[in-house]
Amino acid sequence: MLGQNEVVTAAMIIIGNEVLSGRTQDKNLSHIATLLGEIGVDMREVRTVPDEMDIVVTTVNELRTRYSYIFTTGGIGPTHDDITAECVAAAFGVKLEKHPLVMQALEKHYTAQGAAFNEARQRMARIPEGASLIENPVSTAPGFVIENVYVMAGVPKIMQAMMENVLPTLKGGEKLSSITVTSSVPEGTIAAHMGALQARYRQANIGLYPFYAASGAGVSVVVRGCDIAMLREIEALIKAHLVSIGAPLVVRPQPLAGECQ
Amino acid sequence: MLGQNEVVTAAMIIIGNEVLSGRTQDKNLSHIATLLGEIGVDMREVRTVPDEMDIVVTTVNELRTRYSYIFTTGGIGPTHDDITAECVAAAFGVKLEKHPLVMQALEKHYTAQGAAFNEARQRMARIPEGASLIENPVSTAPGFVIENVYVMAGVPKIMQAMMENVLPTLKGGEKLSSITVTSSVPEGTIAAHMGALQARYRQANIGLYPFYAASGAGVSVVVRGCDIAMLREIEALIKAHLVSIGAPLVVRPQPLAGECQ
Repeated sequence: MLGQNEVVTAAMIIIGNEVLSGRTQDKNLSHIATLLGEIGVDMREVRTVPDEMDIVVTTVNELRTRYSYIFTTGGIGPTHDDITAECVAAAFGVKLEKHPLVMQALEKHYTAQGAAFNEARQRMARIPEGASLIENPVSTAPGFVIENVYVMAGVPKIMQAMMENVLPTLKGGEKLSSITVTSSVPEGTIAAHMGALQARYRQANIGLYPFYAASGAGVSVVVRGCDIAMLREIEALIKAHLVSIGAPLVVRPQPLAGECQ
Repeated sequence: MLGQNEVVTAAMIIIGNEVLSGRTQDKNLSHIATLLGEIGVDMREVRTVPDEMDIVVTTVNELRTRYSYIFTTGGIGPTHDDITAECVAAAFGVKLEKHPLVMQALEKHYTAQGAAFNEARQRMARIPEGASLIENPVSTAPGFVIENVYVMAGVPKIMQAMMENVLPTLKGGEKLSSITVTSSVPEGTIAAHMGALQARYRQANIGLYPFYAASGAGVSVVVRGCDIAMLREIEALIKAHLVSIGAPLVVRPQPLAGECQ
C-alpha cells in the first residue's frame, strides 16, 4: 500500500480462551507488530480464537494463503487445552510426532530441575512433520515454523525470546518510517485539513489519534511512509497549519497503555 | 458449549491501524468480554483489522451471521480515516445519512464549547438507515446498533460509557461462573491429572494458566461452567490432588496486565 516496492505482510493468531474471556490482556501483538514494523513487515490482521480445533485449523488455513507470514501465540504448553501443534499439523495435513532432539533436550531440562519428564511434558516435544524448531532459551520447549506459519508460546517472556530467534530469518519489505506531531487542539478542528493532506499525499498514511490524559487532551497526527523526505515535507505542512490556527504543539511521550487510543 | 440451554455468543471487531501497528494497546476487549461474561454472553472471536473499507465490510458480513452479537470499536470519529459507519452501511446495503437529531445534539455540544461545528464533525452524525443510536454521555457523538451489530468508539472512556447503555438491552444466556485454584507447582506436574478431570467433567471448562511473577512462579487452574455445585466439586478434587502431591496452594490477586499469561 504505502511502499512502491514489494509489500511484505503478516497476520497474527492469538489462541486462548483466557484472552477471549477478558481474564488475560494480550501483550504480544504490540511487541510482534512493533518488531515487524522495524523490518518493513506490515501487520494486516489479528484474530483471537478459542482453544478449539475447528476454528484454529480454519483460521490458520484462511490466513496462511493471504499474508506473507503468520504468527501464532499460545497453546503449546503441556496441558490438555494446549492444542496448537495438533491444529497446525491438521491445517497442513501432516503428521504430529515426538521430535527426538526435543525429547532429549526436555528430558535433560526436567531432570536437571528434579522434575518428572512425564507424558504431559512430552506433549511439548510433538512437532509437525517438516517443521523447523524455534529455540526457547527460557523454558526449553521449542516453537516451530512450518512454511510461513510461526508457532510461538503465549507467555510474553518466552514469546519474546522466540521472536528474537525468528526475526533475523524473516525477509523484510520496504521499511516504513513515521513522524508524529501532537497538539492540544481537538481532532475535529484539524480533521478536514488533514484529510486534504492525505488526499494530496497518497504514498503516506496519515492517522489522527485523540487522547484524553490527566495532563490534558488533544490529538497526535501520525504520518507513516517509506519516503523520509516526503514525511518531513508533510510534517512541516502540519506544523504550519497548526501555527496558522493558533494551535499549540505539545511534546508528549508515547501513549501509556490504556491512557488513550 | 458449556451451558445446557441456549448459548449466546459474541464477536468483536477492533478497527484501527494504530492497534495493528503496535502503537496502541487495545484495552477494550477485556472490558467488553468481562461484562458480557457476567450476563452469560460468550465472546467467541475477535478480529483486529485496518481502517480499510474492503476488509471491514467483509469482516462485518462474515461475523454477523455467525454470532449472536457483534461489537465494533474504533473508526467513528471526525477524521478521514474514521470509516466504520460507511463500512457498516455498506455491509448492510443501506444508506448512510446525517441524522437530524444527532446533527442537533452535536451542534449544541460544539457551540457550547465555542468550537466550530464543521464538516468533519458533521461526519459523526452519519448513521446507517434503520440503525438505533447508542448514547455517548462523554463526547455526544453517538454509536449505533443495526440488527445485531453494535458500533462503538475506540477511546476506552467513551466505549465504556456506550457499553453501559448497551448492556441492559442485551439478552444474556446461561451465566458462566468460575473458580480459580492457584498453586506454586509447575503446570506440567499437574497437567495429566487436570486433563483427566476435564475428560470426566465435560460440562465444565478447565484451563491451566502458568505465571512467572517476581513473587514466584506457578499455575492457576480456572474452572468455568454453569453449575456451581459441580464447580465446587471440581475445586475440591483439584485441591485434594494438590495436597496429595505436596503442592502448596497460594492466594494471588488477579494477574496484572503483562505480568503473566
